Parts: sequence; structure tokens; C-alpha cells
Amino acid sequence: MSDNNLQFMHPYFMGAYAENDHIFENLLLEFVRDHAYWRRNFHPENRPPIPRTARFREDFNEFLAAMQQELSNLSSDLKKSVPFFSPRYIGHMAADLLLPGVLAQLMTTLYNPNNVSDDAAPATLGKELEVGEMLARMIGFSVDPHSYPCAWGHLTSGGTVANYEALWNFRAVKFFPIALAEACKQFNFDPVDVGPMEVKLSEYSKWELLNFSIRETTLLMNEVVRQYTEPLADQKDRKFKIQKFTEAIAHETTEHQGMAHFFRKHSELNPPKILVPVTGHYSWQKGAKILGFGKNQIVSIHNDGSMRMRPDHMEEALEECFNNETPVLAVIGILGTTEFGSVDPIHKIVEVRKKWRKKNRFFGIHVDAAWGGYMTSLFRKPDGDFMPHEEISKKFKYFPHEGTWKAFKAVSQTDSVTIDPHKLGYLPFSCGAFVSRDASVLDFICQKAAYVFDVKESKVKKTPKQKLLSLGQYIMEGSKAGSAAAAANVAHKVIPLHCEGFGRVLTHSMLSCEYFFDSINKLSERMKDMVTITIPFPPDTNLICYAINPTRNKSLALMNHFSRKVFAHMKIDRKSPLQTHDFFGSFTSLVNGNLDEEQGTRILTELGIDPTTFVPHVSDRTREGDHIYLIRHTLMNPWLMFEEDGENYIDKYIKFLFEAIRKEYETAIGRPK
Amino acid sequence: MSDNNLQFMHPYFMGAYAENDHIFENLLLEFVRDHAYWRRNFHPENRPPIPRTARFREDFNEFLAAMQQELSNLSSDLKKSVPFFSPRYIGHMAADLLLPGVLAQLMTTLYNPNNVSDDAAPATLGKELEVGEMLARMIGFSVDPHSYPCAWGHLTSGGTVANYEALWNFRAVKFFPIALAEACKQFNFDPVDVGPMEVKLSEYSKWELLNFSIRETTLLMNEVVRQYTEPLADQKDRKFKIQKFTEAIAHETTEHQGMAHFFRKHSELNPPKILVPVTGHYSWQKGAKILGFGKNQIVSIHNDGSMRMRPDHMEEALEECFNNETPVLAVIGILGTTEFGSVDPIHKIVEVRKKWRKKNRFFGIHVDAAWGGYMTSLFRKPDGDFMPHEEISKKFKYFPHEGTWKAFKAVSQTDSVTIDPHKLGYLPFSCGAFVSRDASVLDFICQKAAYVFDVKESKVKKTPKQKLLSLGQYIMEGSKAGSAAAAANVAHKVIPLHCEGFGRVLTHSMLSCEYFFDSINKLSERMKDMVTITIPFPPDTNLICYAINPTRNKSLALMNHFSRKVFAHMKIDRKSPLQTHDFFGSFTSLVNGNLDEEQGTRILTELGIDPTTFVPHVSDRTREGDHIYLIRHTLMNPWLMFEEDGENYIDKYIKFLFEAIRKEYETAIGRPK
Repeated sequence: MSDNNLQFMHPYFMGAYAENDHIFENLLLEFVRDHAYWRRNFHPENRPPIPRTARFREDFNEFLAAMQQELSNLSSDLKKSVPFFSPRYIGHMAADLLLPGVLAQLMTTLYNPNNVSDDAAPATLGKELEVGEMLARMIGFSVDPHSYPCAWGHLTSGGTVANYEALWNFRAVKFFPIALAEACKQFNFDPVDVGPMEVKLSEYSKWELLNFSIRETTLLMNEVVRQYTEPLADQKDRKFKIQKFTEAIAHETTEHQGMAHFFRKHSELNPPKILVPVTGHYSWQKGAKILGFGKNQIVSIHNDGSMRMRPDHMEEALEECFNNETPVLAVIGILGTTEFGSVDPIHKIVEVRKKWRKKNRFFGIHVDAAWGGYMTSLFRKPDGDFMPHEEISKKFKYFPHEGTWKAFKAVSQTDSVTIDPHKLGYLPFSCGAFVSRDASVLDFICQKAAYVFDVKESKVKKTPKQKLLSLGQYIMEGSKAGSAAAAANVAHKVIPLHCEGFGRVLTHSMLSCEYFFDSINKLSERMKDMVTITIPFPPDTNLICYAINPTRNKSLALMNHFSRKVFAHMKIDRKSPLQTHDFFGSFTSLVNGNLDEEQGTRILTELGIDPTTFVPHVSDRTREGDHIYLIRHTLMNPWLMFEEDGENYIDKYIKFLFEAIRKEYETAIGRPK
Repeated sequence: MSDNNLQFMHPYFMGAYAENDHIFENLLLEFVRDHAYWRRNFHPENRPPIPRTARFREDFNEFLAAMQQELSNLSSDLKKSVPFFSPRYIGHMAADLLLPGVLAQLMTTLYNPNNVSDDAAPATLGKELEVGEMLARMIGFSVDPHSYPCAWGHLTSGGTVANYEALWNFRAVKFFPIALAEACKQFNFDPVDVGPMEVKLSEYSKWELLNFSIRETTLLMNEVVRQYTEPLADQKDRKFKIQKFTEAIAHETTEHQGMAHFFRKHSELNPPKILVPVTGHYSWQKGAKILGFGKNQIVSIHNDGSMRMRPDHMEEALEECFNNETPVLAVIGILGTTEFGSVDPIHKIVEVRKKWRKKNRFFGIHVDAAWGGYMTSLFRKPDGDFMPHEEISKKFKYFPHEGTWKAFKAVSQTDSVTIDPHKLGYLPFSCGAFVSRDASVLDFICQKAAYVFDVKESKVKKTPKQKLLSLGQYIMEGSKAGSAAAAANVAHKVIPLHCEGFGRVLTHSMLSCEYFFDSINKLSERMKDMVTITIPFPPDTNLICYAINPTRNKSLALMNHFSRKVFAHMKIDRKSPLQTHDFFGSFTSLVNGNLDEEQGTRILTELGIDPTTFVPHVSDRTREGDHIYLIRHTLMNPWLMFEEDGENYIDKYIKFLFEAIRKEYETAIGRPK
């Protein structure tokens, strides 16, 4: 690949060598000054509280000196930072930042808007909701307010909080019909022709009520409220009666009852399960704990040999839940697992849901696309169409696997998605996002019970956009920086989230990944007398893991030990300056128990390891291991394919890896264990 | 007060007129360049991927032009922002930002550290934990790792998340003894001489186990683990056995069981209550919902006439809970309520806890000091001592009320505290903090069950600091910006959190508040023929609310209407440019039901309103109101007392208010309703 292919990205970043530092500096200064003049021109008739002479005072200068010293200390401490910007950093999920994003963020910080509400952020709350729409469009959700469903999205401090929000939203909707039925019973009110069967509300069993879809729940709510309020039209105490009814409904929700009381009261119901692939990020378990569901309620779904969720196992798990009348809160699919970059078959989850819908069983689908979400921009055409597999395949040697393509396409049919602008969006931390396909869910999570009052007088019913002016009512967090919203907003405006905009950056990243894949395989061939290098799963996204085993070694323990030694060459190490390192990577493990036996055996056999040394509990530390150690690289840096003297950074890395392996091999041979 | 009293703050901020813009600009440039050179010097032998000639290409310049245009659009949109920097803004909890903080934050953003773990933030994770210690010391928690308890703290995206963490931490500890007892039963293992009564574990009832203090729970855990593991010392399968035991304990915790299963299994137990003052921030209710406790489990504690929590009502509520064997997860005390700035009697909560401890009943105490936390710096001497009431009173006319002083002093005896650097810390959003008095709680919330393994071989037992290198394991959030930590760290180093450092800024703010208080009272006297202006509660912190009623009006509805009209003069209004406004305020309400009748009557009588027009449900809209509308001001801007032609900003505000009231009064008189 020639340098020409990198040209389009030249102005996108500050650069590995800070090549665009002058552009950055000039724009930053321009907007800092613009801010300063804004302050000056707010009430220019006032005298400045800090006199011009202050800067000649000793105390003033003493403070400045102390401040400058502390800032210098910080600046020097920051030199220990991970060099995310460099193509020599191919470790965790971070790289250089988009210039428009970082400039917008820095500029906005000076104004310090608080996106908790429109009051505190007249300029940036709208930009946050607009980012929500941009992300929604990228993944294929409709944002047309005149059709159903209409999506909305907002920024979170990170993907972890977005994942929690998914669970919170699903719970609020899932148990709502039961609360509604309970309140109606208390009011001796039995709505007619409601729900999917169009019967009286009292005719539904609790188990049936637990399997209403999100749409059915919204319609049920609206219809019940209509039937309750219409006869009150001319009554004087109408408002009071409606309020009492609203309060009664709210009182019966899980959110008001709490999980303990709710499930004691409805003792015939089983607490809900959440299906999460084994490869799920640990925030799912943390979330299940913190939200009071319980970690034990997570059903771990096995992976196939490519670290993708196994649909057959998901189906088994669903079957078991539904047979036991155990509600399934949600199935979580992962679009780019944290450890392996693998893509779950989202399309299969969607398909299976359709199947169960026909049997009147429902579960939510959330896609944890913290890593892979932005890759949807590769597939999305500027007109909104999803690119056919054939068309996109032409751009790559291997990508995308057909299942991967189908998975990305199917995201538009799920309920909500986590996407991290601070990962593949090349934006600063802390910036995650939660995108929901259906803004009508907002009614169920509002802190002020809204279901009835909103419907009371249809002319005053607020649109989602109006509601979201009080964003803090609908999200987990409260006060929050508007600067992250400005960063994402400007970045996405300048580099739009489709295949001709941001998709090009990620196309390039995938091409780097394919080159890396081929290069590792070539290296393996070249070094076969010394070691076996295996890529256990072909990469679904721009993240690759590989294992290294010295030839003739059959012990997993020794292999892991050897791999750790090799990894030490590319590890962040506080003791030596960054400059002494050539490359930085990361590592991960395949843990016994998270990997099915067949797959473990396949991978170990490829490596020449005796599969019996892969055990759940290690007894013999010299032979056995309870995990397979892998070296892990994200290939997201924009300059990996930049050539210098006929060599790009991946070529340089391969040379470096060759030397690291040889050195460790010779050490190991010299001092055999 | 002469301008001299403001001098010390001259170099702290950018300034209302951006007076320190050159200082800001020069330092910013210095550190931006330092960052650029760092990039350049990482591997200077490499050729820059972006060629020097790129800037002459058309496509490069087209992108730059588009980027500059979008950034210019943003910059112009930001001109709609709330002018937090100005002494004319006395609305919500925001003002100008500390120069060292904002510079540190901007600088650090370029390095983009991720404080989820030390790996991703070698430079800033330590700074975050250091900020935790600084805050802990300010509020009086010990951070000596060699004594018990040793505090720790970390930053959150805001106070809301810190409040959630308090509930999460308390739950994990409170129900642990039951999980432990359950696991021991399964293992036919009955530890001896454990717990406060030094008896067999099986001799404690579940209700007793639910009332172990945090310390007792930690000791219990350590002792049970010791008794279980010691006899295994020489067994070959020791590790395996310990792991099984650990897993069994974990399996029985609320976090693993979930609230539903846990309380079904332990059907004799009541779900826990949380005591929160009526004035509590809405994040407490949101938290109770999201964490699965249920909003109904919150017991609202009434306020006294100063909007401080009533200890007698808290005692009643506790009495009722304990009499019914209902566990109390925590009592929340508020140090500076969001709406009124009032300070709850934290010392009474601490006292009442001591009383109940003697009867072997326990509850956690969390202080929501999102607003008032930093005011502790007023009281804290550089040597760590808490300033006597007499000494601090000398600096003020009214502050601090004796109860307020006692409340601040008692914070050191509570379990955890929420503090928002992005409020009275004068730092950018998003920056909240959670500070816990006892780092041993970390063992209960770790995502990897740690209780047993940590004790296994005491020589490898990790210190809290070592554990916290994997910060993401112990906090709600995951990936998160290190820049906020750098900002707080540098700001607090340069302006230390004691009475001779940051305390001076807040002393000044309190003096402004007292001046404002007197000025409003004088204005009330001056305008008594036109209106009554009442400050319903003397301010406990630097936040004041007042009500206005036209003389002779007896209807609450009319008073609220009139007040809204007056407030319109100081409201952010998208339709007219900021410059057309002289001052900005905020408003709040005293809601019927949240205020006891006696207090409502007192306030309304002072205003000349007929108390019978204050009703829970409005029937007659022309007379009645279900709330008392108040205008609300935070007095945190540093330049409020800056004098110009003998007039400071509070004087200017009073003139402005006089005119606004007169105008609305005359309009009202001209067109009587």
C-alpha cells in the first residue's frame, strides 16, 4: 500500500511526530482568545476585577511561580504516559485523537457547560442529543420523530455506564405491565381490548404480562390511560384522580418496590435472567451486582471457535428459561469483544427473538458495541443504505466474514447499543454512549412519573426532544461535561459517520489488521524451527491475538512462561523510559472454563501443546496452566502502514518480534528448565 | 470590605474580564509545545508520517477549512453559554474555574490517560488516589495506612455516581455476614469466638448478623478465613479448597444472589431501608431505583424550619425500623442541600449511631457533601486540626451557626462522603468524588472475590494502594479520563485544602453571602410599602433563597405569579443575547408535603400570605398554590465584592432587583388580576 492511501488522514490528527502542531496551536489560540473576548464583552462597561497592576505584585508572582512549578511537574510526570499517539503503540484501545474533536473539547471546557439540563448548557445539550442521532443513524436506527420507533442517544462517562443503562431501561419496561395490572386491580378498573390478545387486562397471566414487547407495553400504557381518563373528562377532581392513579401505578413498579419486595409480592414469578456471552466485558457482571439483579442471574453463553457467541447455546438457554417461566430481561450481543475483537452473531439473536415472539415470549436485545460500534461506519453509505457484502468485500482481502457482515447489519433491529467514542471514535476519555431504538422508553424511566400526565392533554404531550431538555431525569448520571458532546459533535460533522467519511479511517485500520495477520503468519513460517506462532481466531475486527510456543515444548505452563518473557519486551514499564521501548502491546488469556474443550484442544494442538496440560485447577505448576496466554494488539493507529525505507510499522514490529522471540528462545535453550 | 481582601485571588482565575488571559495563553502554549516535542522525541529516528508538504495539498486545506468552519460554528454557538465566570451570574452551582485546574486538565487531555488502571495511566492514576487522600484529609479522615481505619477516595463523573457508590458499598458490607454464615453452614464449619459477642458464628441470628458494624464485619471475615485456612496449611489441595470456600461465600452474597433471590431465601429478613432527608438530591431516589432497592425503601426524614434534617424524626424512623427488625442500610446526611444550601446535623446522626451501637444495632452514615464538602477547608487548619467555633466565628458576622460547625466537625466520624470538585472546587465538569473512611471495604466490592485469597499468604496480601492500581475493579465506572484527576491534583497542590489555602476563597464567598443576606433584608425594609421580601431560612452555606410578596396580597398563587415575573428578569433566555441581561439567578420551590405545616405557616405569615392558600392539591388556581416559589442564588463567584465607584456586584444586584420588583409591581397594579 502506498503512502497515497494515508493522505486523506493527514489533517485528521496531530500526528505521531506532532506534525500538525502549528495548526493545532493556531486554532487553539484563536478559540481561547475568542473565549477571552467573550468574557470581556459580556458587560464591557464594568471595570475588570483583577487590576492590570496585579501582575507586578510579589504575592501574585509567587503564586504564578508555584502554579507553574506544579504544572511543570505534571507535564514531566505525564511523560510517563502511554504513547497512544504512536504507531509503535499497538496495545489497548487507544490511539491519536481526532484534531477536530480534541480542539472542540478543549475550547468547550473553557465555557464549562453542564449537560445535565438545557438551563446549564444552552449550547451543548442539543449537540449531545445530535451526537445521539448521528450514532443512531450510523447503526441504522431511525431518528424520524414522525415514525415508530424513533431512536435517541446520549453520552455517558464510558461504555460501562451505558451497559448499566441498558439493564435499567429494560427492567423499567419489562415489569411495567405487572405494575399497571396491579394498580388497575386496586382501582377496580379492568381495561378492555388491550394487549396483543385484545382482551381484558385481568385476563393476562403475570407470565404473559412479562412477555409483552416494548412496543406492546407502550401501547398498553397509552390505552389503559386513555380508558381511565376519558370518562373523567368533565369531572372537577379529574386531575386529582389521575394523579392518584399515576401514583398507584408508580408504587407497584419494580423501581419503587425494589427487587426484594416486588418478587416477594409476586411470589409466583422468577427473577429475570440476563444472557451474556462468556467474552462479555466485566461491566456486565459488575452491573448485574450493582443494579441488584445478582451476578448469579447472568447466564453465560458459550463461544464458538472464533470467540463468537454460539447461537445454539443461546437457544438452549432461552428454551430453558422460557420452559421454567423465567423471564429473560435481555440477551447481550457483543460487537467487538474487549479481549478478542470478535463479533457475536447479532443477526441470530434477532432471528431467535422473532421466533420466540411468535410464541409470545419476549426478551430485550442490547448490543455492547463499545469497541466495534464505529466500525458500522464502514458499511453505512452516505444515503443510509447498508453496503452489500459483495461490495464491501472488494475493499479487503478477508474482511468482513459473512457472519460479521450480517451481525453489523442486524444491529438496527436490536433495542439499544453501547458505543464508545473514546475507543474507535478517536476521541478523548471519558466519552461513552448509550443509544436506544425507541424513545418511548423514556416514559418508563423518568424520575417524575410521566405516563399519565403526558397523555392527559394530548396537546401538551411533550416530544422526546422536549423531555430531554431535562436530560438528568433520564440518565444514570447527573451533572456532566458538555465538552465531550462538543468534541463528538464536531468530529462527526467534519468526518461523517459513513463509508466515505469516518469509514475510510476504519477501512484503513482493517487493512492494517489484515497486513498484520498475514505478516504474523509469514513470521510463523519463517521461525518454525524455533517457535510456532498461532492466531487462534481470525480477526473479526481490527484486533488480533496470537500465541507463541517454542517448538517441541508440550507444556502449557512453559509456553505461557515463554510468551510472558516475549511480552516483557513490549510492556509499559515504569522503571525504564518509554524511549527505550520499540513497541507496546497488551496481553490476554483464554481461561479454562470459558473455552469449550474442543476449541482448547484445537488451539493447543496447533501450538504443539499437550491439551491435557490445560486444566481448571493447576496442581503441577511446571507443566499445567489454567489459561492460554495470548499477546494482543489493536491495530487502530492511523500510521501503521506508513512506509519508511520500504518498511512500514508492521514490518518493523515483525522484525522486533523476531528479535524478541529469538532472544528469549536462546535464553531458554541456554538455561533449560 | 476593601479590594485588598480580593488580592490573594487575583492569580487564581482567568477572571471576569479574562484579565489573566496572557498568563493562561502562555502556559497553555508552553505545555502544548512540550507535549508536541514529547511526541517528536519518542522515536526521533523515524520519519514523520505526515509529510511537511501535506499542508500545500488541496485536499488537506479543504479539510482544514471545513474543520475550522465547524469549530467556528461551535465557538459561536458557545456564546449562548451561561456566563458562569461573571459576578453577574449568581444562579446554579458554577463560577469561574481555577487556573491551575483548567490548565492541568487541558494539558492532560492531550496525553489522554485512562484512569481505569495503572497500565493505561501510569502518570495520573496515582494523582487521582492522591486527590482522594487530599479530600479525605480535608474532611478529617485518616489516611495513615498503618492505623485503622485508613481512608481512600477517587473521582467519579459527578456526585450522582458517588451517591450510588455509597449505597453499593454499604450493601456489599451489610449483607456479607449472612453470606459468610450461610457458606460456613454449607461447609459444616462453625467458626468459634467470632463477632462482637465472641461466640460461635452459628449462634448469631440473621438479624444480629445484619447489625454488625463495618469494622466487625471486616474482623469477622478475617477471623473466619483464618480459622478455615489454618488447618489446611500443609494440605496439597489447599488452594483448591480455599477457592471452593471463597466461591461459596461469594455465591451467597446479595451481589451474586440478587436482591430478589436473597430476600426469598432469607424470607425472615426485611429489605433494608435508607433514610434520606426530604431535601435530598433526586439522585438518591434515582439510585434507590437503579440499584434495585426501590424508591419505596427510602424513608424521607422531615426538615426543621431551617431546612435541616430533624434529628427527632430520624430517631423515630430508626426506632420504627429497628423495632420491626428492618435493617437500615444507611442514614444520609446532607452537607449543603442542593436547593437551600442547608446543613444537616451530621453530629446528631453520629451521636444517634453511637447510641444504637450500644444496643447492637448498626447503620451506615453517608454524607452527601456534593455542595458543602469543600467548605470543610474553611475549618481545617494546616496541621489538620479542626478550628474551634469561637475562632472561626471571629471571621464572620453570622457564620457558622453552632450546629453547622458541629456538623462539619462530625463528618470525620461518618463512613463515606460525596464531594464535587466541579461545584465548590471551581473545577471543570465532570468531576465528582467518593471518599470512604475505611479502605478495608474494598475487599467486599472487588469484582474478583478477594476475601480469602488475600489472607491466604499474609506476605502477599495487597495494600489498598496496590489493589487500586486496578481501579476499575472497585468503582462503578470503567474507562475514565485522567485529566480530571490531574486538574484536581494540581489545583489542590497549589491552593491547599485548608483555612490558609482554599479556605480563604470560601471564606470570601461566605462573607459575600452574609453581605447579600444583610442587603436583601435592607431592601425588604426599604420596599416594605410595595413588597415583603423574606429569607425563609438563614443560610448555612453560601446559598440564599428568598420569597417576594406584594404587600396586601394574601394569595399564594398571586405571590408565586409575581415572583416568577420578577425572576424572568434574571433568567437565561434563548431569545435575547446574554448581554441584554444584568444578572442571572435560579429558582426553587418549597413543596407542600416536603415542609411541615408549622414551618409553612411561619414562612407564609412572615410574607403576609394566608396559610390556607398553601395546599397539597390546587383546586382554585387563582388563589392556591402547592408550592412556595423562591428565588435562589449561589454566592460563589470570587468577584462579588469587587467595588467599582463605591458599589460592589451585590449592591448592583440589589439595585437591579429593586427595579425589577418595581416594574413588576407597577404592571401588576396597573392591570390588577
